[in-house]
Amino acid sequence: MDIELGRAKRARRAYSFDDIAVVPSRRTRNPADVSTAWSIDAFHFDTPIIGAPMDSVMSPSSAVRLGELGGLGVLDLEGLWTRYDDPEPLLADIGDLPGRSAISRLQELYSEPIKPELVRDRLAEIRAAGVTVAGALTPQRTQELYETVVAAGVDLFVIRGTTVSAEHVSTVAEPLNLKKFIYDLDVPVIVGGASTYTAALHLMRTGAAGVLVGFGGGAASTTRATLGIHAPMATAVADVAGARRDYLDESGGRYVHVIADGGVGTAGDIVKAIAMGADAVMLGVALSRATDAPGRGYHWGDEAHHAKLPRGRRVKVDQVGTLEEVLYGPAQVADGTANLIGALKKSMATTGYSDLKEFQRVEVVLAPYTGK
Amino acid sequence: MDIELGRAKRARRAYSFDDIAVVPSRRTRNPADVSTAWSIDAFHFDTPIIGAPMDSVMSPSSAVRLGELGGLGVLDLEGLWTRYDDPEPLLADIGDLPGRSAISRLQELYSEPIKPELVRDRLAEIRAAGVTVAGALTPQRTQELYETVVAAGVDLFVIRGTTVSAEHVSTVAEPLNLKKFIYDLDVPVIVGGASTYTAALHLMRTGAAGVLVGFGGGAASTTRATLGIHAPMATAVADVAGARRDYLDESGGRYVHVIADGGVGTAGDIVKAIAMGADAVMLGVALSRATDAPGRGYHWGDEAHHAKLPRGRRVKVDQVGTLEEVLYGPAQVADGTANLIGALKKSMATTGYSDLKEFQRVEVVLAPYTGK
Amino acid sequence: MDIELGRAKRARRAYSFDDIAVVPSRRTRNPADVSTAWSIDAFHFDTPIIGAPMDSVMSPSSAVRLGELGGLGVLDLEGLWTRYDDPEPLLADIGDLPGRSAISRLQELYSEPIKPELVRDRLAEIRAAGVTVAGALTPQRTQELYETVVAAGVDLFVIRGTTVSAEHVSTVAEPLNLKKFIYDLDVPVIVGGASTYTAALHLMRTGAAGVLVGFGGGAASTTRATLGIHAPMATAVADVAGARRDYLDESGGRYVHVIADGGVGTAGDIVKAIAMGADAVMLGVALSRATDAPGRGYHWGDEAHHAKLPRGRRVKVDQVGTLEEVLYGPAQVADGTANLIGALKKSMATTGYSDLKEFQRVEVVLAPYTGK
Amino acid sequence: MDIELGRAKRARRAYSFDDIAVVPSRRTRNPADVSTAWSIDAFHFDTPIIGAPMDSVMSPSSAVRLGELGGLGVLDLEGLWTRYDDPEPLLADIGDLPGRSAISRLQELYSEPIKPELVRDRLAEIRAAGVTVAGALTPQRTQELYETVVAAGVDLFVIRGTTVSAEHVSTVAEPLNLKKFIYDLDVPVIVGGASTYTAALHLMRTGAAGVLVGFGGGAASTTRATLGIHAPMATAVADVAGARRDYLDESGGRYVHVIADGGVGTAGDIVKAIAMGADAVMLGVALSRATDAPGRGYHWGDEAHHAKLPRGRRVKVDQVGTLEEVLYGPAQVADGTANLIGALKKSMATTGYSDLKEFQRVEVVLAPYTGK
Repeated sequence: MDIELGRAKRARRAYSFDDIAVVPSRRTRNPADVSTAWSIDAFHFDTPIIGAPMDSVMSPSSAVRLGELGGLGVLDLEGLWTRYDDPEPLLADIGDLPGRSAISRLQELYSEPIKPELVRDRLAEIRAAGVTVAGALTPQRTQELYETVVAAGVDLFVIRGTTVSAEHVSTVAEPLNLKKFIYDLDVPVIVGGASTYTAALHLMRTGAAGVLVGFGGGAASTTRATLGIHAPMATAVADVAGARRDYLDESGGRYVHVIADGGVGTAGDIVKAIAMGADAVMLGVALSRATDAPGRGYHWGDEAHHAKLPRGRRVKVDQVGTLEEVLYGPAQVADGTANLIGALKKSMATTGYSDLKEFQRVEVVLAPYTGK
Repeated sequence: MDIELGRAKRARRAYSFDDIAVVPSRRTRNPADVSTAWSIDAFHFDTPIIGAPMDSVMSPSSAVRLGELGGLGVLDLEGLWTRYDDPEPLLADIGDLPGRSAISRLQELYSEPIKPELVRDRLAEIRAAGVTVAGALTPQRTQELYETVVAAGVDLFVIRGTTVSAEHVSTVAEPLNLKKFIYDLDVPVIVGGASTYTAALHLMRTGAAGVLVGFGGGAASTTRATLGIHAPMATAVADVAGARRDYLDESGGRYVHVIADGGVGTAGDIVKAIAMGADAVMLGVALSRATDAPGRGYHWGDEAHHAKLPRGRRVKVDQVGTLEEVLYGPAQVADGTANLIGALKKSMATTGYSDLKEFQRVEVVLAPYTGK
Repeated sequence: MDIELGRAKRARRAYSFDDIAVVPSRRTRNPADVSTAWSIDAFHFDTPIIGAPMDSVMSPSSAVRLGELGGLGVLDLEGLWTRYDDPEPLLADIGDLPGRSAISRLQELYSEPIKPELVRDRLAEIRAAGVTVAGALTPQRTQELYETVVAAGVDLFVIRGTTVSAEHVSTVAEPLNLKKFIYDLDVPVIVGGASTYTAALHLMRTGAAGVLVGFGGGAASTTRATLGIHAPMATAVADVAGARRDYLDESGGRYVHVIADGGVGTAGDIVKAIAMGADAVMLGVALSRATDAPGRGYHWGDEAHHAKLPRGRRVKVDQVGTLEEVLYGPAQVADGTANLIGALKKSMATTGYSDLKEFQRVEVVLAPYTGK
Repeated sequence: MDIELGRAKRARRAYSFDDIAVVPSRRTRNPADVSTAWSIDAFHFDTPIIGAPMDSVMSPSSAVRLGELGGLGVLDLEGLWTRYDDPEPLLADIGDLPGRSAISRLQELYSEPIKPELVRDRLAEIRAAGVTVAGALTPQRTQELYETVVAAGVDLFVIRGTTVSAEHVSTVAEPLNLKKFIYDLDVPVIVGGASTYTAALHLMRTGAAGVLVGFGGGAASTTRATLGIHAPMATAVADVAGARRDYLDESGGRYVHVIADGGVGTAGDIVKAIAMGADAVMLGVALSRATDAPGRGYHWGDEAHHAKLPRGRRVKVDQVGTLEEVLYGPAQVADGTANLIGALKKSMATTGYSDLKEFQRVEVVLAPYTGK
């Protein structure tokens, strides 16, 4: 599989979700018999949908709503909700910004300091609703804020950056020792993105309960143009699923969950992520399309407001229904953006599978989309 | 041919009609010497064209017209013609619907119950014209309605769904036992879609006279975006043709007809479908382009009016001539949408073949279209 | 190189000019030292450019002009010039036709009978100018008209159809016996299109002096959509060049010229055609861009006016300079449509070759165009 | 890796920067710990950025500015600055030319003779500012002007053409003997473009200090359409890096610098060029986007004003900030056109490398861009 690009360089071919499709090749099932449930640590969910910690996707109230609907909402603890007492008017304004000035306004909004007491209050608000509580920090901020977060009471702790490695080297600041951190912490940790077998295997060895597969390459990202980095998701998920299998053996039975994070924009992408070996998917743009999403028809990521090197855009998205309709329908559109779970069940039923773990074995073809 | 997508997943490369082309490599013939005739069971046809059971393609009168022109029209027995006494005004209205509301209006129109007496009357109307009578049901409705259909008198019984397997599993409703059903029935059955060797082989073993190759992926379908399912047609037809060959041996001589159903939009696609091994093609959008098609310039499939998960669209199509001109010309357009049979004969003649069965052996090249 | 498309079908990968490029990998030369001369039979030409027998490309006067400029003009003896005393007003009208009606008007114009005396007079007009005289007929008309053509005095006889084989089979009309015809004729014959090794080898064995490589797939053609036929030109030329080499051995030294005919629209395409093994190129759209071309800014092929199955379009082309400027510059545009011979010489010089036969050995890379 | 295109021709697959991406697969680093320094001969630079000798990119003052910012500016000694006393008004006019007439006006402007005294004065102006002085000539002009250049005092002498070979053959003019020229000259020479292993190895053997990798295929070039020549840059850089490695052994330790020149338009492309083995990059369009670039929002190359065969265009570019912001940010845009060095450092840090030479070993995947 190793290809010579030129005399001094070889590469492996990597594939995106657009390059592949699942094919029905055996019995069919009734969608009513299909389960999309999954568990991580002690937490059980009816659907493998995790709301991405992005301000256009998850607010405290939409995290609660997603929990009530069977998924898991993760709040960005470095977003507007922990910087401002009332971010709602700011969120409403972002959509109105003219294209050119959007990035500089985002840079300005996110330069406001994070308030630990807001971290505490936002998490408390989610907890009060009785759903699983999850918050996300970047590796850079984890040491500064994790005690606040743990004290506030989270069920799942998410450490999420564009690329997170088990070994971060810095002569400038003492880097986070992930392994020690996770060992000491009493809360299960989901960490990433990682996009290769080796990177993921090292993250698994830190004791993480789940690994996010991605490289900062979602719908609003320009990582490929700015950094030259691209880890096509179909290959990345299958590689990390390979690491999960090998680590399961190496660890004598620890099953680390693989969560596709980035490039999962439609029901078809969810199907393909699981087909490649994901246990669950973290959705950004797909949930930002809900009429009750905090982004109000717009979507942007952390990378868009980097002070010196923005690597993302604020993008306009089509609103296709309430969060409930986005997940469970009925769909008014036929483009894979609504009734995500209905579509996942239909796809599993059509290919003859009854649960997510089994469905990871579905037959896949390499078939770059050409219109037919 | 097996490609590693990532550590935990392998796939086979699959090809669409757009990826391939036929090449002339031997003698040429006079098109007047070429035959496009084929037979299934006791029924003989001058052209390998089957009208798809879709309301925009086949009405009772257009099924009759197609029969008179040498093809086979299949009426959708779950469409508007068996739900309404007079669907003509409804069909006329569908084109006028604004884009956004089309899906919800279709959902509403198709929620009207099916009337068995209309099933009977529509089939009787076709029979009265003296052409071969064929009607289609989904597997879900077959048990409920097949006695009405048989009593009404059909020559060919079509069971057609997005993906139909020989073994449907359900804990909710007693599934149709295809093998027993076909064995008991006195009418030859065409069944599908199937898109892989294994799925098709199992359908052949049920005793079907013909297998529809497809996965719900026609011109008006969004199956790939919504379900992540895509079975590129060139590979699917060649795989099912392989199953036909192996089943011919296994059964000691039963030849099951392979019918390409989906993705066959132009004369060039018909040529390629047969080149890959199809005995006949089921046409949707290609026939909806007739000025006398019931869709009146619009085309939509069953998937478009699914109550909770629509997976298709109502699409506007160019009207290129009468059904007769679509099949036999003269063509006023040069894009492969008119004089389908003339083009097929010309292609067969140019490559030196005189009948369809021989033409399945024509040389094919892999040549994704790049404009030259 | 043989690829499985599906269980019952295999194919070879075929490449178009857009898929390849030449690369400089050795010495460079001064363009002034480069020769683009070639000969066929007793006829010598300064440039390997043949004007395609199409009414938008070659009139009697533009065939003369091309001859004076060092190339070879071929007149279509079944075009407007042999059907009408004065086709100039008709040619001028064609550009004014609204899009939809263009095909039916072309069908009408070309239904006028061919007049043998006009065949005679048009060829005489070219002969009178002192340039090499060449006229083209389709295989269908060759027997009816060849005596007129020969009597009128042609230097090179071109038999050109979409696909021409050495063995045409017909129960309807006595087909042309190419081998006997060429043997009996006292004039060298160029024949085609052929697009595979086998087809070309058989044409070479008929005694042809040159073989046209093509399948009716030029700029104004829709052969792929209508007939499903496509023979990507890079592979086709290299295959036919392989036939030339093998036939040279088999025949004990008869060198049959290989002429790329179709898909050669820019100077870059000319370079690639020769790099793949062509001795010369037959140009349609590339010469129709001359301000003094008979098409007056429009281009169409024979296939566009087929009475029942048109397989081409009238296309508008950019006019980029006089025929002389198209061939020798100076160019006012930088898109490869002007100064074709200057570009060919520059490319040969840059890659270090001094004549066309040597340049057939230039290094080529497979590099589908992606914008960089 | 050798592919049969057809019977008579084989080719190697070549890849562009768009076909590849780097992937993070090991430790991560703090960008503050990353160095982008490099040296050639006695000259040290903080960043591997070389300003291309093009009038829209480098004027005497912008060459000085680039030197102050840690890069190397190369002045085109055959451009407007050595033909006119005051080219500023001419540069300002070029943007105002209507599209069609731009090429003929450029042809006219560049027909003015080169003045040796202007060559001397422009280089003196750069030297006076205390930065490294570099000027470029084409091989055709080198003999005529090099003594003036050397007398004026350059630190680095650049010989740059579309394709430059170690052995240029001409019967018309005595060609430059590169090996002798470089041996006799007391100034280190950078020479190119070369795009293959063999061509580059021969250039290295002439004694060059650096080789430019390219074929005249930058953002404003139409070399592929006009000449049929294309050497996709990823493969070209990796091939020339292979020549560097082999020549290092052959010469007993002479390290010839590899400079990617062409197709490097964004930060992502810089990352990829170095990943493929480049030591530095020569930027054209990327620097023309500076608000203080001499092109004032437009970009064009030498090829655009060729008198008889223009092979490039004047293109409008987005102005994204000052030269300093283009190199070091802060960026107001997220498309990889600003903060090039910040992005390069971030990419190196994300993939765990601390200097450029190490980063040439980064893992690369073959992943043609498909939108995800």
